[in-house]
Amino acid sequence: MFEQIKAASQSLIGHANQTPVFTSSTLDNQLNANLFFKCENFQKVGAFKFRGAFNSISQLSSQEKEKGVIAYSSGNHAQAIACVGHMLGVKTTIVMPSDAPSIKLAATRGYGAQVITYNPQTQTRESVAEEILQQNDLTLIPPFDHPNVIAGQGTVAYEFFQSHPQLSTIIAPCGGGGLLSGTAIAAKHMNPECQVVGVEPELANDATLSFQTGKLHVKPNPPTIADGTRTASLGGLTFPIILQNVDQMVTVTEAAIKEAVRFFFARMKMVVEPSGALGLAALMSGAIKPKGNIGVIISGGNIDSKTMAEILTEH
Amino acid sequence: MFEQIKAASQSLIGHANQTPVFTSSTLDNQLNANLFFKCENFQKVGAFKFRGAFNSISQLSSQEKEKGVIAYSSGNHAQAIACVGHMLGVKTTIVMPSDAPSIKLAATRGYGAQVITYNPQTQTRESVAEEILQQNDLTLIPPFDHPNVIAGQGTVAYEFFQSHPQLSTIIAPCGGGGLLSGTAIAAKHMNPECQVVGVEPELANDATLSFQTGKLHVKPNPPTIADGTRTASLGGLTFPIILQNVDQMVTVTEAAIKEAVRFFFARMKMVVEPSGALGLAALMSGAIKPKGNIGVIISGGNIDSKTMAEILTEH
Repeated sequence: MFEQIKAASQSLIGHANQTPVFTSSTLDNQLNANLFFKCENFQKVGAFKFRGAFNSISQLSSQEKEKGVIAYSSGNHAQAIACVGHMLGVKTTIVMPSDAPSIKLAATRGYGAQVITYNPQTQTRESVAEEILQQNDLTLIPPFDHPNVIAGQGTVAYEFFQSHPQLSTIIAPCGGGGLLSGTAIAAKHMNPECQVVGVEPELANDATLSFQTGKLHVKPNPPTIADGTRTASLGGLTFPIILQNVDQMVTVTEAAIKEAVRFFFARMKMVVEPSGALGLAALMSGAIKPKGNIGVIISGGNIDSKTMAEILTEH
Repeated sequence: MFEQIKAASQSLIGHANQTPVFTSSTLDNQLNANLFFKCENFQKVGAFKFRGAFNSISQLSSQEKEKGVIAYSSGNHAQAIACVGHMLGVKTTIVMPSDAPSIKLAATRGYGAQVITYNPQTQTRESVAEEILQQNDLTLIPPFDHPNVIAGQGTVAYEFFQSHPQLSTIIAPCGGGGLLSGTAIAAKHMNPECQVVGVEPELANDATLSFQTGKLHVKPNPPTIADGTRTASLGGLTFPIILQNVDQMVTVTEAAIKEAVRFFFARMKMVVEPSGALGLAALMSGAIKPKGNIGVIISGGNIDSKTMAEILTEH
């Protein structure tokens, strides 16, 4: 899989943003460690999901590309598939719940995707997607549980270790585990001594429980503000990768997540979505003991104005 | 003065952040031009003011450094002086209005500055500062009207032209004119063909009127949201520099400023203060016709949570 990450990294050149790494001396003094933030909030479509989407669609056969791809997601994966489809001239169909925020529906359509809505009360997105897929012979690009998606997400850590080989810990948020899997594989190849830590919201701790018990836990629709981690469980590919390559899983409270979002806003002048703030939340709350050179992956910055305004003022 | 900018740029190495330049393909498509944003919101203390403060304090004699410096400001200049004083071991005294936001008073004290408050209803900051200065033999670091301050602020454009020599237009916000003066001098030396444009809020258009008429206009306490431009007028040094080296001055509405702040938030995942959004506001509102390779200086990112929440939700 590491070879696939390397190859993905090559193929992303000129398409994805090579995202910057930011630091904060305030934070380093406060936590008595050296923190490095890999800013995927500055990635295309505002999230690391662009990488996996590009690495998946670009490797399809020309016949598959001609027929088009389908994805189901109400979040960053949908935007990423739509955006990459637009860039590579591949028709995209996105299945989204009819009650998805209108801004997300509009943004996805804005990239030229065909958006198909379903009633989440009466239908599942999988069944809707499956039906359309069969009828139109489309290729499904799953949100995390696919080797090309995982390899694409692994390029975040690959780039990170290339620019910062000295990291002694690397921290990534965990939803379905695509980013964390890719991160762990890259870490274990590029710096085997580096500790890999995954972070989940306490309210969506399925992966932590799965990791600790070795048995897959499922938690549908956890009510966390970190919408990128609301995935019900790890996948058939990501779970074993995480079991084998991740050193620690920790959880953080909703309050800690919001505190981290506010820190990024006030001190680092960055817009970070709640899921993207999990790593800092774990460090600031003490769930991870800060020590040495710590790489923190900020997964994305797609937070709507209303949610951000609430987080900024409730404090 | 250009030689002083070059020298300032050298002396800032290892102290100031070499700020990144961001782009947005969404915006480029929308405006049919190539925009480059020099992100001083990612500068130390969250604003370009760090540069002028460092360039001023670092050039004091060791005797002056030992006695300490004084500044009056309720904004980014105060933070910058306090921060640089802390870095260089120089005692700083900052005169601030007693009704300044408590977060700003606390932040300034946090850098180890002695904060002296005055009653803005009954005293002027100049008179208060003058009295303390005389008593303690301190050196006053003015917020913009000083050669070392202007040279420091000019390093923003100096760095910008070094990394992006192709700019055909460079746009800077204008308050007292320190940043715009430094920008114009750097531009005319490094790329004489480059058009230099200054932007003010319509509500604080003193510099635009001064520029158009050749006579200094004064506008005390203009009620604009762009607090960095509330300075009453250009200075004795900045006015002639701007008259001679700036090509155009334009103004923007409060609505346009807020719209630009929202764009930075939603599409570029950056926290930009209203004054820092003036350049983009001028382009998006049509006050400046977008054409060619446009460099836009984002002056800072120091906006409090409450103001940001209001801007994000009033839309």
